[in-house]
Order: sequence, then structure tokens, then C-alpha cells
Amino acid sequence: VTVDVRRILREKRNGRAHTPEDVAALIAGYVGGEVPDYQVSAWLMAAFLRGLDETETDALTRALIRSGRTFDWSDLGRPSADKHSTGGVGDKISLILAPLVAACGVLVPMVSGRGLGHTGGTLDKLESIPGFRTHLSPEAMRSQLDALGVVMVGQGADLTPADGKLYALRDVTSTVENESFIVSSIVSKKFAEGADAIVYDVKCGNGAFMKNAESARRLARRLVSTTRSLGRKAAALVTDMSQPLGEAVGNALEVRESVDVLRGGGPEDVRVLTLELAASMLQGCGAEADRASALARAQRALESGAAWEKFLGMVAAQGGDAALVGRPDGMARAPVVHDAKAERAGTIEAIDSFGLGELVVKIGGGRASKEDRIDPRVGLMIRRRLGDTVEAGAVLAEVHLAAEDRSAVEWAARCFQVGSTAPTVPSLILERVE
Amino acid sequence: VTVDVRRILREKRNGRAHTPEDVAALIAGYVGGEVPDYQVSAWLMAAFLRGLDETETDALTRALIRSGRTFDWSDLGRPSADKHSTGGVGDKISLILAPLVAACGVLVPMVSGRGLGHTGGTLDKLESIPGFRTHLSPEAMRSQLDALGVVMVGQGADLTPADGKLYALRDVTSTVENESFIVSSIVSKKFAEGADAIVYDVKCGNGAFMKNAESARRLARRLVSTTRSLGRKAAALVTDMSQPLGEAVGNALEVRESVDVLRGGGPEDVRVLTLELAASMLQGCGAEADRASALARAQRALESGAAWEKFLGMVAAQGGDAALVGRPDGMARAPVVHDAKAERAGTIEAIDSFGLGELVVKIGGGRASKEDRIDPRVGLMIRRRLGDTVEAGAVLAEVHLAAEDRSAVEWAARCFQVGSTAPTVPSLILERVE
Repeated sequence: VTVDVRRILREKRNGRAHTPEDVAALIAGYVGGEVPDYQVSAWLMAAFLRGLDETETDALTRALIRSGRTFDWSDLGRPSADKHSTGGVGDKISLILAPLVAACGVLVPMVSGRGLGHTGGTLDKLESIPGFRTHLSPEAMRSQLDALGVVMVGQGADLTPADGKLYALRDVTSTVENESFIVSSIVSKKFAEGADAIVYDVKCGNGAFMKNAESARRLARRLVSTTRSLGRKAAALVTDMSQPLGEAVGNALEVRESVDVLRGGGPEDVRVLTLELAASMLQGCGAEADRASALARAQRALESGAAWEKFLGMVAAQGGDAALVGRPDGMARAPVVHDAKAERAGTIEAIDSFGLGELVVKIGGGRASKEDRIDPRVGLMIRRRLGDTVEAGAVLAEVHLAAEDRSAVEWAARCFQVGSTAPTVPSLILERVE
Repeated sequence: VTVDVRRILREKRNGRAHTPEDVAALIAGYVGGEVPDYQVSAWLMAAFLRGLDETETDALTRALIRSGRTFDWSDLGRPSADKHSTGGVGDKISLILAPLVAACGVLVPMVSGRGLGHTGGTLDKLESIPGFRTHLSPEAMRSQLDALGVVMVGQGADLTPADGKLYALRDVTSTVENESFIVSSIVSKKFAEGADAIVYDVKCGNGAFMKNAESARRLARRLVSTTRSLGRKAAALVTDMSQPLGEAVGNALEVRESVDVLRGGGPEDVRVLTLELAASMLQGCGAEADRASALARAQRALESGAAWEKFLGMVAAQGGDAALVGRPDGMARAPVVHDAKAERAGTIEAIDSFGLGELVVKIGGGRASKEDRIDPRVGLMIRRRLGDTVEAGAVLAEVHLAAEDRSAVEWAARCFQVGSTAPTVPSLILERVE
């Protein structure tokens, strides 16, 4: 069957909606090599500018899923759930959440990505644990999931390959930032993982891709509706990213902070958001009937140390040094640590989270391009939050460096706006889509 | 110098205007092979949907020109002029006009195209003359132009190669019908030919690409302003194409009709439009100071037989059989000729010129795709015009066929709408842009 790409292009160019069959044929033709990239790139631009409606987005999502393998864990006889975050600065929630939910008896088959640009990636954080393997065979994933209830891996080439191919083309044609493309990319990957319920954490604010609440809410609603149209349970939280999440930003530092939370300590916002997301997952997959009981169960799993035990079990199962992770100062430390200080007294009016994320990339803790290598030791410890009052000379953040770099310390200090006006601090949870 | 195509794409996607430098770099990069087709196709779609303003269109035109050879005839010491038509059904004007203007002492270096779809092409018409060569070396063009004042050839690969490459990409990405792309494509080719003055004949009506007067007028104005911005003289006529031009539609038939006009006969509309365009060319290049003297000079060249002599000279110079062209029935005739007749008495309310053009393609006189071969003998002689009254059984058109084909005859008859209302017949010249 040949697909009439010129007709499809003309229709989208003129603002017409595609049939699901046309979307399927276009993507299948692209993956199969019959439709050349120069036609698909023209389509990407037309769809970017004219938009794709819900039916078209569903069809695109299905086409991406159909291009590769899909997992099915139903024979393991337990409910399963997963979470996806749209990415932010200091977002280490997955490291705590996956073992926590597994400790509640729910399977968590989590496939994560690497960091690119100002946001970190879960895979990079896990790999800062010496020995930790993020690439497992499907058989190894299944056996670990059955035995332990949790597995955290990177995306193999066999999962939604069309999404990878399409993303590469979007990247070079400046068609990345389109809601329908983003929805289909995220949902297809999460669907292919095979979890019964998917919870989305849509970040909103100056450290997130979505800068305003309206676009974040719309994205959250579309992620949920598209996932449901494919027959899976879904919910979403829109959460604040107008300041980094927790204190640690940087790979090994974030693992340490995750360990703190798993052991009952750590920053309040990280703990609260993890429990909220865990409750949504437990409720979403049917393990708990209502929000109150789901939240209580998650709290018990954290406070009892069951989540921490599960984390250690996962680290060991995936080849990581579990003993080292549990020791204070077990994780590698940066050789140079300087304090970024307030130049004047006042109130923290704003924190440039994007700037802090970019700084971590610059000092070697993230990637400007895919090929960059990461130094797991470097990063930031954010010591002040929005609305805090500070004296002149107060420590705003610690800067963990591989080598002396005064400009990095100055950069960090500049990301804190100290003034005389008390800011309106957004709630951590801005909206729930259930 | 590398060009940041992603930035250029993002800017056009967001509705921003490009700098001339960015347009130049994009096209030069494409022609040079540094910018891949999948980025250019995304740009074509973005520019199609967001538009290009006059400055961007000028820059695109210059970039297309710069990609290849440009002719310069200034050393021949005479003014030069050319005409371009946007294409219609039965438009054989160039065959008469070029020798006529040359007979007035003005150089006419005319580069023409082949027909595609419902409109014919000047090259195909010329090639229905046995022996006529449409591919000459630049040296042969120059020497013929110097000696005879007129040369009619096809576009060599060295003239605006970027336009050919871009057109092929527009064709497969459904981005052909954009005014700025059309303007830059036409003007770049005409500019590269090297004529001092260019006159555009923008066809308007059901046999033309421009169906309504407003879009035709806008195209005419933009062709003129873009040509002037490049430092050449320009004018345009918007002319009616709500019925075929003249009687003959089809290659050899149109050559015969052109010969009739050159010898002082032929259809009135063909004669009038040719003289109007000749006057614009003569005035445009400065050979005549005002419209009245230009028109008088063109009329004299036609009536004196000087234009006809020039035509015969050109045919002979380019290898064609000039003696044959001058003989009644010298040109090859189709073996089967049938009359398409009116089913009822009444007034010709409308003529489906597009349908008649499509019919000629179907019976072998045009191309549905570039590879199709043409039968020069086939075509139509249109015997009735808009507003004519007819009896039942009156001949509407002769259908010249390579073989028996009743459906073609019925098709021709169906293109004439016979009713009881006298139509408003548009003027031949709808507007002058001077």
C-alpha cells in the first residue's frame, strides 16, 4: 500500500484534520523507508503550525507504539504503575518513588531517559552509583520485576523506534515544542512500558519546559486523555518548578538527597511530592481504593524503611554498590566546594531555576549535546528558598566543582534575586487532573 | 560559513521575517549540499504558511539567480525585452510576439518552458515544427540574437539551478501554490535571461492558475515590484482566461494559428493581445517613448510582413523546416477530426477552459507527468465563444484525435454551457500594471 503523502501534506497545510488511517500510513511509511524524511519534515512543520486535534494525536501515539516492542506484565499477577515527569531542576523524585511504590506491592517497570539541557535525567543519576546497570535485557527486566517489584532502566532501541526517528527530525527542523508531538512522544513510550496506570508530573515554572500554568494544565489534561484513549489508567499533577525541587542539583548529590528522603529525612518538598505521586499511582492502578488510604500506605512504606530496603535491593540487583550508597559520604564528592553568598540583605524574590540548571550543565553535571560526558560529582546544594529572608553574606547555595571556577560561584549567586518584596510562593501542587 | 538552519526555521515558524543574509545563506547552503533537503522542506512549509514579505521574496529571488549563469546582452548595443505568461489554454502568444518585437529592432532572448497539466508550453509548440532545435549553446544563442534579434530556447541546467531543485522539493511537499515562491521562481528565470525589460501576462479565469481577479492583480503587482527591485524594467497585464485564447488548442494547431496571425489573419483576441504585449515590451525597454507610438510600430511590423519574415528566419536559424511552416497543411494533421456539437439552442453562458485543457492532455497533446510524450497533431479548434448564440447541432469545437474516441468529443461538448442567459464577457485586458 502506497501512501499519498502529497495529499496528506496538502490537507494539513490547508488546516484539515487527518484520518487515523492517514496518520498511521504516514508513520508506518516513514519507519519502513517508503516515505522520505523531506516529506515527513514538511509534515512536521505543517502539523506544528496547523495543530493536531485529539483524534490525530491519539492516532500518532498509536503509530509510534506500533513501531516497536510493547511490554505486558499482566501474567505477573500484580497491578503495575509508573510515573513520568516533564523534567525540572533537582527533580530526583523517580529514585525515591519507584522503590516506594514497589514496597507497597505494586510493580514499577520504569524506563527513564538521560538529561539534556538544563534538566537532569534519572538514568544519569542512577549511573552515578558505581556499578549500576541501566541496560537490562527484557528477560532480566521481567525476572527482576517479578522478584523485586521494581526495575529502572534506559530505553532500548526496540521501544517506540519511530519516536526516536521522529524526534531526531523534529530536533533539526525546530518542531520540538509542539503539544501534540510532546504528548504522543511521552504517552507512546510510557504505554510501551506496559504499566496499568501512568501518573504524569507536569512541571510548571522557570525551571520547566512549561513556563506558565495554563500551558502546563493543558498538557496535563492532554497526557491524561490520550493515555485513557489507549485504554490505560492515567492521572496528572501540575507541580511548581519556580525554584529547584529539594536542595540537591547534580547527579551524585541528588542520589544522596534521595537516600536522605528514603531514610526518613531530606527536604520537605521532595518528601511531600513523592508521597502525592505515590498515592496517585497506588490509587490509579487499583491497589488502594481512595486517596486517603493510598497516601497512608505510601507514608507507612517510607516511614517503616520498606522503601529504603527496596531501593537497596534494586541497586544490588542492578549491579550497584548498595553498601556504598548507604554510607555517609559513600558517593563521590567534588574536590572543590564554594559558597555562593548574598551581596545584600533582603528577601529572596525570585530564583532563576533555568539559570541554575544551565550552570550545572556548564560545570560538567549535564549535557549541552548528546555526546557530552557527565561528571557525577558536581552540582549545587540550594540553601535558600523563595521568600526566605537573608543577611548580607548569607550562603545561598554551595557550588560543587571539579576544579576552581569563580565565575560559576558568581553565576550561582546571580540566580537569586534578593530584594525588599515578599514574593507570592506558588503551591507545590498547582492542580490535579484525575 | 555554516548557516544556523534551526534558528532560521524557528524564526519563520514563529512568524518572524528573515534577513536577506539568512535567505541567501539558506539557499546557497542548499545548492552547495551543506543544508539537507529535510530542513529545506520544513522551511518551505513554514514559509508557505507564514508567508514571505517583499524583502524576503527579493532575497529569495536573488539567491535563485545567484545559483547559476546569467546572460548579459548589453554589448550587442540594442535594447532587449521579454515576456512571461503565467499560462493558459490556447496561449500561443510567444510564437508571434517574439519575432514581432524583434522585427521592431529589439532583442528578444526568450527562454520558455514545457507544458504541464492543462496549460501548454511554448517549447512543445515550437518542437511540433519538424527539425526545430530548442537547445542552443550560449554561444549559438548570442550569435543568433546578434544576427537575427530573436532566439527561443529551453532552459538549460545552468540557469537558476536552485529554482529547479527547489521546485522539485515544493512539488513533493505540496508547497507549490505560494505567491512568493511563484514570484521568485518566475522573476529569477526571467532576470537570468538578461532582458532589459520584462512584461508579465498574468492570466485570470477558469483556464488559468489564478482563478480570481484579486489574486491575479496581486501576483501581477508583485512580479513587477520584485523585478524592479532587481534593477530591471517591468510591466504586467492581467488578461482574461475565462475562455481559451484564440481557436487553436494543441501544439501543431497553435503553430498554424500563430502563422495565420503573423500573416495578417487569425483570431482577433490573439492579434490584439499580441500587439498590446509588444507595445509594453517596446515601451518598457525604451525603444518607443509612449504607448501610442509603440502600438503603431508593433502594428506596422505585423502588417508589413516583417514579423512573419522574422519568424521564418528564426525557424530556419534553429533548424526548422521554414518552407513547410508556410504551406497550408504543412504541419502534421491528426487523422481523426470530429465535431463536438450543441445539444440545444441557446447562448454560450460559460466555457470550462480548464476542462478543455485537461481534455487536450487526455488525448495526448499535453503532459500529466513530466515523462509523458506529446502528440503534436492532436487538439481542439474552438468554434464558439462566450456569449455566442447557437442552434441545436451547431459545431462548438473540432476535436483532433490520434484515434477514434467518442468520449473525447462528448467531453468537449460538455465544456460548453448552453443556456438562456447572456453572460457578462470579461474584457480581454483586465488591468495594466505599469
